[in-house]
Amino acid sequence: MPTLCRPAVAVPEHTISLRETLALARALHADHEQLPLVLRLIKNTRVNQRHLVQTIEETLRHPGFEVRNLVYVREAKARLPAVIKKALAHAQLAVDQIDAIVFVSCTGFTMPSLIAWMINELGFRSDTRQLPIAQLGCAAGGAAINRAHDFCLAYPGANVLIVACEFCSLCYQPTDLSVGNLLSNGLFGDAVAAAVVRGVGGTGIHLTGNGTRLVLGTEDWISYVVKATGFHFRLDKRVPGTMEQLAPELRSVAGQYGWDAEALDFYIIHAGGPRILDDLSHFLGVAPEMFAYSRATLTEYGNVASVVVLDAARRMFEAGAVREGARGIVAGFGPGITAEITLGKWTSPVSMPLTTTTTHTEEIVS
Amino acid sequence: MPTLCRPAVAVPEHTISLRETLALARALHADHEQLPLVLRLIKNTRVNQRHLVQTIEETLRHPGFEVRNLVYVREAKARLPAVIKKALAHAQLAVDQIDAIVFVSCTGFTMPSLIAWMINELGFRSDTRQLPIAQLGCAAGGAAINRAHDFCLAYPGANVLIVACEFCSLCYQPTDLSVGNLLSNGLFGDAVAAAVVRGVGGTGIHLTGNGTRLVLGTEDWISYVVKATGFHFRLDKRVPGTMEQLAPELRSVAGQYGWDAEALDFYIIHAGGPRILDDLSHFLGVAPEMFAYSRATLTEYGNVASVVVLDAARRMFEAGAVREGARGIVAGFGPGITAEITLGKWTSPVSMPLTTTTTHTEEIVS
Repeated sequence: MPTLCRPAVAVPEHTISLRETLALARALHADHEQLPLVLRLIKNTRVNQRHLVQTIEETLRHPGFEVRNLVYVREAKARLPAVIKKALAHAQLAVDQIDAIVFVSCTGFTMPSLIAWMINELGFRSDTRQLPIAQLGCAAGGAAINRAHDFCLAYPGANVLIVACEFCSLCYQPTDLSVGNLLSNGLFGDAVAAAVVRGVGGTGIHLTGNGTRLVLGTEDWISYVVKATGFHFRLDKRVPGTMEQLAPELRSVAGQYGWDAEALDFYIIHAGGPRILDDLSHFLGVAPEMFAYSRATLTEYGNVASVVVLDAARRMFEAGAVREGARGIVAGFGPGITAEITLGKWTSPVSMPLTTTTTHTEEIVS
Repeated sequence: MPTLCRPAVAVPEHTISLRETLALARALHADHEQLPLVLRLIKNTRVNQRHLVQTIEETLRHPGFEVRNLVYVREAKARLPAVIKKALAHAQLAVDQIDAIVFVSCTGFTMPSLIAWMINELGFRSDTRQLPIAQLGCAAGGAAINRAHDFCLAYPGANVLIVACEFCSLCYQPTDLSVGNLLSNGLFGDAVAAAVVRGVGGTGIHLTGNGTRLVLGTEDWISYVVKATGFHFRLDKRVPGTMEQLAPELRSVAGQYGWDAEALDFYIIHAGGPRILDDLSHFLGVAPEMFAYSRATLTEYGNVASVVVLDAARRMFEAGAVREGARGIVAGFGPGITAEITLGKWTSPVSMPLTTTTTHTEEIVS
């Protein structure tokens, strides 16, 4: 059975604190008539700090779509090799044992995708299957796990590398002044991640099954408007309310395998924002503390798009507290509105040093 | 065994002939020092006519990336439903029997992808797996077939809808004046296509196996530069020469199944340009007339990117000349440089009216 091995995550060295975010919002939007609402919403995110690929000053400047996209490529090439090598090490695989690469990223655009560069630069085999996904946004972390799982079902014994690259700060648009945009400016962060799904062997989350659900009639609720200035994020205020519709879908996917979605042992949920976690906990009938890893990602990194579920999973691996055979769910949510849902069982909790904090430091350095 | 059923293809109602293309090149680039070379290269494409989603006058105007991308969405929504319904009819399936949609398109960008719209608008199930691919360019037609094939291997009995949407004319950049760009302006055309890969049943190309190959060190040879004005196509003049490296890769993939790539019964090859077909024919040791369907696509529609292999396959289906059990290859080439290679056997050549020309007319009308 395919196994999602321990993810590697890295966040950039520049940071912005909640205090700095609020001060910036007050300074930049002093005359915005909904400023009090915006400040309240940003405070409610409980995002204490986010990481950025550039300094705050550079982040606030918009040098044009072309330059921004070049920064995206430069930073991706600088930051991806370390997490990829670490993910391979976690899976105890060499580059030439990878049969497919799923690359998910919605905050920059290249053609060909960066998979071609990875193969050339890092020595993957030239027959590696390439699966670049740019259009699933925050749901793409879950989609990457699910498509990697499917690939291993199609080719038993195959190994798939997942790479997620999200520099949300490069989609900051100073001219977008809706409440949804100003909230987003205080919510999203930058991070990269990699993880391997091993077809045979490996320890971590044994993948039992997966499913996708679209919330009908919501395709405009989370979207990009594509302009000369780049991708402009649009967020409808009804988005958090969709958890009422998605909770039954999580139950439905779990039910297909005879599992009860409200009685699982672990939950790795996309931390899109605090209300998504609160509402899903409520509608699923699961204690809020069951989402602790996702909350930690949100608090320490912000919403890092497709990286969230990989980072929350990393925290669970590093905490080392899951018992053999424990059953859990991974759920990524994103535009569509799409939910990518994964069911898995914990296997072989190898003795692993509790390196949560030191790993973090290493990754910033690497 | 999964089967690629008969594709449906539609081309827009506006056209530009080779004569008009040459006249435009002469008029717009009268003082370009390499104009004679450009004219010769365009003549050599043997592209007699291309179809466009707008009039020639509208195509030549650049209204900005935002407006162009809105035109992309408007035209996609207007033109995709007809080919999707036709492809479902060819596969004798209803919308609710589709388990996954692979959507390939590199000439416009949306998030979410248009799969969310298809599900909402055309009534596909809300649990349809979504696989949007924007970054594989012309190779994406082959990639779509291969990923659909893999999905059916993972979930035997599943059915996958492939949709390809390429409006290359919306990537026309009047300020790009390299020889590669001016040649591209005379080479690429617009088209949409759809086809179903049925997990069980269906007639057409029984999918035997597939493989992907990257030509190492060529990631910059076919690429987009992303600018405020949109996607700018870059084409290196060494691209056609890569057929010398790719011919052995086609042999290698065929050889994995005990097949001889130079002695197959049919060839559906990406018609990127005339030299790609000529060189591949030479290096593979296959008679040029074996690529007749691809040549017809190139001559009548131009290089329609990811649609090419689906259109060449459509022509083969409609010609009705392949015998039961015949073995063949589908090969898409695109940025990376990536080759997506499919092996298949013809099954159940049902008696089918020879509707090549009438179908074409119907599709323009639909």
